[in-house]
Amino acid sequence: MNQDYIQPKEWSIVEEGFEKDRVKSSESLFSIGNGAMGQRANFEEDYSGDSFQGSYIAGVYYPDKTKVGWWKNGYPEYFAKVINAPNWIGIKVVVNGEPLDLNTCLAVSDFRRELNMKEGWYSRSFIATLPNKVQLHVKSVRFLSLEHDQVGAIKYEVCPKNTAAWVEFIPYLDSGITNEDSNWDDKFWNTTQVSSQGRQAFIEAHTMKTNFKVCTFMETMVFYNGTLQTTLPKETLSETLALHSYKKELKKGDLFSLHKFGGYTVGVSQKQTDLREVAKTVLQKVAHLGFDTLLEGQKKAWANIWAMSDITIQGDLKAQQGIRFNIFQLNQTYLGKDSRLNIGPKGFTGEKYGGSTYWDTEAYCIPFYMATKDHKVARNLLKYRYNHLEKAIENAGKLGFSNGAALYPMVTMNGEECHNEWEITFEEIHRNGAIAFAIFNYYRYTGDYSYIPEMGLEVLIGIARFWQQRATFSAHKNKYVILGVTGPNEYENNVNNNWYTNYIAQWCIRYTIKQLHKVKDGYPEDYHRIIGKTSLTDREITAWSKVAKEMYFPYDEALGVYLQQDGFLDKELIPAHKLPKKDRPINQKWSWDRILRSPYIKQADTLQGFYFFEDHFSREALEKHFDFYEPFTVHESSLSPCVHSIQAAKLGRMEQAYSFYLRTSRLDLDDYNKEVKEGLHITSMAGTWMSIVEGFGGMRILDDKLSFSPKIPSQWQSYSFKVNFRDRIIELMVTKEKVSFYLKGSEEMSLRVNGKRIVLLASQKVEVLLDF
Amino acid sequence: MNQDYIQPKEWSIVEEGFEKDRVKSSESLFSIGNGAMGQRANFEEDYSGDSFQGSYIAGVYYPDKTKVGWWKNGYPEYFAKVINAPNWIGIKVVVNGEPLDLNTCLAVSDFRRELNMKEGWYSRSFIATLPNKVQLHVKSVRFLSLEHDQVGAIKYEVCPKNTAAWVEFIPYLDSGITNEDSNWDDKFWNTTQVSSQGRQAFIEAHTMKTNFKVCTFMETMVFYNGTLQTTLPKETLSETLALHSYKKELKKGDLFSLHKFGGYTVGVSQKQTDLREVAKTVLQKVAHLGFDTLLEGQKKAWANIWAMSDITIQGDLKAQQGIRFNIFQLNQTYLGKDSRLNIGPKGFTGEKYGGSTYWDTEAYCIPFYMATKDHKVARNLLKYRYNHLEKAIENAGKLGFSNGAALYPMVTMNGEECHNEWEITFEEIHRNGAIAFAIFNYYRYTGDYSYIPEMGLEVLIGIARFWQQRATFSAHKNKYVILGVTGPNEYENNVNNNWYTNYIAQWCIRYTIKQLHKVKDGYPEDYHRIIGKTSLTDREITAWSKVAKEMYFPYDEALGVYLQQDGFLDKELIPAHKLPKKDRPINQKWSWDRILRSPYIKQADTLQGFYFFEDHFSREALEKHFDFYEPFTVHESSLSPCVHSIQAAKLGRMEQAYSFYLRTSRLDLDDYNKEVKEGLHITSMAGTWMSIVEGFGGMRILDDKLSFSPKIPSQWQSYSFKVNFRDRIIELMVTKEKVSFYLKGSEEMSLRVNGKRIVLLASQKVEVLLDF
Repeated sequence: MNQDYIQPKEWSIVEEGFEKDRVKSSESLFSIGNGAMGQRANFEEDYSGDSFQGSYIAGVYYPDKTKVGWWKNGYPEYFAKVINAPNWIGIKVVVNGEPLDLNTCLAVSDFRRELNMKEGWYSRSFIATLPNKVQLHVKSVRFLSLEHDQVGAIKYEVCPKNTAAWVEFIPYLDSGITNEDSNWDDKFWNTTQVSSQGRQAFIEAHTMKTNFKVCTFMETMVFYNGTLQTTLPKETLSETLALHSYKKELKKGDLFSLHKFGGYTVGVSQKQTDLREVAKTVLQKVAHLGFDTLLEGQKKAWANIWAMSDITIQGDLKAQQGIRFNIFQLNQTYLGKDSRLNIGPKGFTGEKYGGSTYWDTEAYCIPFYMATKDHKVARNLLKYRYNHLEKAIENAGKLGFSNGAALYPMVTMNGEECHNEWEITFEEIHRNGAIAFAIFNYYRYTGDYSYIPEMGLEVLIGIARFWQQRATFSAHKNKYVILGVTGPNEYENNVNNNWYTNYIAQWCIRYTIKQLHKVKDGYPEDYHRIIGKTSLTDREITAWSKVAKEMYFPYDEALGVYLQQDGFLDKELIPAHKLPKKDRPINQKWSWDRILRSPYIKQADTLQGFYFFEDHFSREALEKHFDFYEPFTVHESSLSPCVHSIQAAKLGRMEQAYSFYLRTSRLDLDDYNKEVKEGLHITSMAGTWMSIVEGFGGMRILDDKLSFSPKIPSQWQSYSFKVNFRDRIIELMVTKEKVSFYLKGSEEMSLRVNGKRIVLLASQKVEVLLDF
Repeated sequence: MNQDYIQPKEWSIVEEGFEKDRVKSSESLFSIGNGAMGQRANFEEDYSGDSFQGSYIAGVYYPDKTKVGWWKNGYPEYFAKVINAPNWIGIKVVVNGEPLDLNTCLAVSDFRRELNMKEGWYSRSFIATLPNKVQLHVKSVRFLSLEHDQVGAIKYEVCPKNTAAWVEFIPYLDSGITNEDSNWDDKFWNTTQVSSQGRQAFIEAHTMKTNFKVCTFMETMVFYNGTLQTTLPKETLSETLALHSYKKELKKGDLFSLHKFGGYTVGVSQKQTDLREVAKTVLQKVAHLGFDTLLEGQKKAWANIWAMSDITIQGDLKAQQGIRFNIFQLNQTYLGKDSRLNIGPKGFTGEKYGGSTYWDTEAYCIPFYMATKDHKVARNLLKYRYNHLEKAIENAGKLGFSNGAALYPMVTMNGEECHNEWEITFEEIHRNGAIAFAIFNYYRYTGDYSYIPEMGLEVLIGIARFWQQRATFSAHKNKYVILGVTGPNEYENNVNNNWYTNYIAQWCIRYTIKQLHKVKDGYPEDYHRIIGKTSLTDREITAWSKVAKEMYFPYDEALGVYLQQDGFLDKELIPAHKLPKKDRPINQKWSWDRILRSPYIKQADTLQGFYFFEDHFSREALEKHFDFYEPFTVHESSLSPCVHSIQAAKLGRMEQAYSFYLRTSRLDLDDYNKEVKEGLHITSMAGTWMSIVEGFGGMRILDDKLSFSPKIPSQWQSYSFKVNFRDRIIELMVTKEKVSFYLKGSEEMSLRVNGKRIVLLASQKVEVLLDF
């Protein structure tokens, strides 16, 4: 049974009623972020119950010493951890000397949280009866500003309902925080200065080892029945704490309100400068604007985001809420301003997976950002890998490769590998393919070729070199084989000739050679620079070609399917739906060896290849492979349902496509995997977007042209989305009968609908009847 | 370059000259043990230089919480650790107020260590110039008594050479010791009482978690120029220390001598009793005998061991020293008195591999103990596994097997698995086969069938059940396959159809079915008891038979060899001798993935099958497989050279056999693997013995008869050994021309030499000419 306490609303995530055992899940679900920082929905006031504290700063990490059972040569020395940053949201509330703590209150009623996705704020309200019987009405609103992305703002209001009472607000900063996830209980932060000046306070601290300098700051002010109180706060400073105090005797029904502006200035972007001075400038700006004006700005900024990225669904409230939640979280996590940043699997909502970059970015996230943002955002994601090319070459060197071969890490913060399972770190090498594919996909979608001569070709050369060296010539097969890999299906380790890996390796080499020719012809200066820099020779290219040409692919003639890997057919091929319920999910119920020798597939593997390279295969081949592999797929990765949803839609299996869609779009809201308290599955949310746009909408780029094959689940009346295709904004609305297009701008463009060419006139609506 | 500081001597291991960087290696090489306890050759006096302290008590371990990178379902919670026990050997020596410490002395000359293997003692002598210029002649002798196996004795003598001096002996006990190997820096020991009474002192302590109770004790006395001093020592007690002090003003040339008796009484064998009282009784006995008498007893006890187990080699001093060192260490480690004990890979010489039991015992050690001891010793080793059958069934249950299937652990102390790499723990399942093979081998050699109806058959049933459940029917191959295993060659992980594993699985099932019939016919009561206990049905046996009958074996027709596993021929088959020297050993120089996809073999894998089941295959088949696999074998396991030596000898390749022999017999003395400081390779020492007896001597049991095919390396003039075959002692002497046999006792027996039957008359020498 999945969770169901989140109320279905078009634009909001709403929880009503206070339940202690939901606190950690809600802390994840109601998380807020602005691309530069993020914050779990921890309470501002003290809470002594079970909670998972998390404030995160983009790009600030700690290289935690690796923990392994048995060391293997080649293991990286550290596993990067996203770290819990100093707390800027805290506000202790003391009523007649007694602290407000929902865990110890006599009663809590009217508890309500709302995450307003349309406007980008989070609110909470409740009536609490403290142990001293004072009944307090509390309401808080907070948001992380998109316009001023170093800052968050909180309005915290209390009103004694049943009696007069002394109420003290103690807003504070706290750098004495810890990580839930720490291998050796190391201290991650070192605090150097705690200071306060008037309404402002600052904690300067730096991370151990990485030495990220961070100034955490706040400015606080209180209002009594709406009037700003001019008295300055009392301040208390200790080693890692800066507290302000405002105390007031309230009459029954009085409103006492605290506005708190807080956040971080960070050394990574403010080199050599006094971070406290920068913080003061920031605070001056936002405090001058005030909470309400800032909030107005926030609403406008989110309106701009939604104007381009919203997807509407009529007739299915849960589906509507699901897709908006996914789009909202993606925009909270990454906005593409800084090519040093990337998209962690949990975004700013938890510590799991170390907040590092995985192949999720290239395989799942880039399409979303390409279609809903300016192409520079996706370009920044590509540039991130270009900037890490040196490290990828070093990484390959550590594993014994040479001559500029590049192996991008499975998990990284700064380009270095920081995962510590040999079967993943050393063997899940298909990630290199996804990085090359993203370069291809970026050009295919945006039409911006410039990235390739400027940067991409060097990345491609490193990757092609790797594949050529990693392949082995099997005299026995008279073919090149790729031994000892882990495919996207991580329920197989150290297999030979994973079809997906072999296929993408071959593709990478061929694509690289094509780009070499294209750059040579079109960008001779870049070409010569790159050849000089990489010392690439014709002989080497010949060796690559040979590997690509003579690559081996496991195939079964009788079934007519490519095999996930050598020997796949030796398994006991019992479909997953026949497994007893008590055995699911197998990754929690089965021993690892049992999983490994089973046929069960964690996420699309062979089918991932059919997704990336759909146009290399016939519809019949897709159908055959889908029918062969999907029944063994247990979808125990959040990245699994979206690809299958797209393929089911392509095959016209709309019920199945819809069921996969629900699973991906409400994965966290309904907590399918019973782990939402650890954080949200951010990267798979981009897969949800793909399920609609590529799955139901059938968007493809075919022969350099935009193309759609729209379908609609029977549960929906209509749905609509916009895409930015090469700086043209096209809006689609799909109903059961027709699809209507609206092209913004002043120039016409042509596209294909179900294979037929249509022309969209500028700023006009065009309707096409769907023939089903 | 291997180390070469150990002087070649027939009966001794001798080191001359003091070199600080050899201290840890020598601490391993000069280790002493008596089956019940063991002691690295740590100095008695203080030493501030680099040292690895180790005192070990058989069977006393600590379940250290497992350390893993990523937890996998099925991992055991702890990794058993052999633990450094309280120090009983320590003697501080203070000269004119200054402690003797070889690390800080102005000069050390005439330093000499000797491990006298013939008589079972270890001595050390040197002349040290202390910082205060006093020149001290020191001599110590120590041994662990075979007769009184809770006790060791030390005679420690000093003589000031250049001046009169005050000398203080401070013999002590110390339970404030630590482990080098500890995952979480846990405290392993808890000391409950420290006491002293006259010349005796005691520390009572117990291990954390496992609660082994240990009383460490000592009795001390001093002699001045040979005269026992009657003054009692001054005593000082602290939380984990008990010190005695004897101080004396010595004239130049005086001899001051300390006798110390010490050791442990252990709760595991003295349940419910007062361990201090037991210690007092023990001390009373040995102190009454005195050091010299005890030492005489030690010499006699070792003479008895050697009388049966010695191997002589004429014409090759290093080979002679090597084999005696191996036999000596095996006897120091395990004497077969207690079926709760087993043979750790490092014996009592270090902490590595946790001191736990591996398949080494069954595959390598049992033949040595069968041939050089009463058959009860090997029977105790078999009984050890019978006692762990319940745990093996539990262990299989944790991995998803049922109905009494047993998977013996890869590493264990008490029958529970305690290893933590999935590729070993869950997949190196061939160990189950070695345990069944040892049962077969025990009966084949000793002729004692009684073990099988009494205990062995139940073990076999559990193992057969496991194999039947672990095999998978491949519809594709129309055969049973065994997927996802690690063979003896641990440089391959998660492979399919490891030939050795499939072969031994098939053999186990067939052997079990044969024993079921045999026990049914010959031991009907046992049979009914066992069938009742195991609920074994005919239907189940039919299922076993089917798996055995239809087992798949990877085979290459063109080469005419069984393949180590599916896909082996896809590798780049470059012989190991072509690898650049800088790449060796590959387990130190290569990343793990590179090792995995290479063809290189850590230790005999397919050839291990040809070793166990030699008579299932023709000589030609052996030759073909040896010629195919040995060139890829890097012998980076200590267990590798012996099997290859035996097979090379069988194939008449005496130079190769000899070279493997030297490598196995002097592995530690010459430190081939650059790790002797971590401890000795005890279990592979049994392999050394096999290299001579089965390799050069060609000993086999064929059709229930003892058989030999003696050969001799060209470097040797002759060699001799004895074997106990079914309580008959046969001595062989092999020269270049002939082999002579001598049969002890009063009855004749027949055996085969090079296939021809000969009859040995009782107590008579029989000579057979060798025709090469």
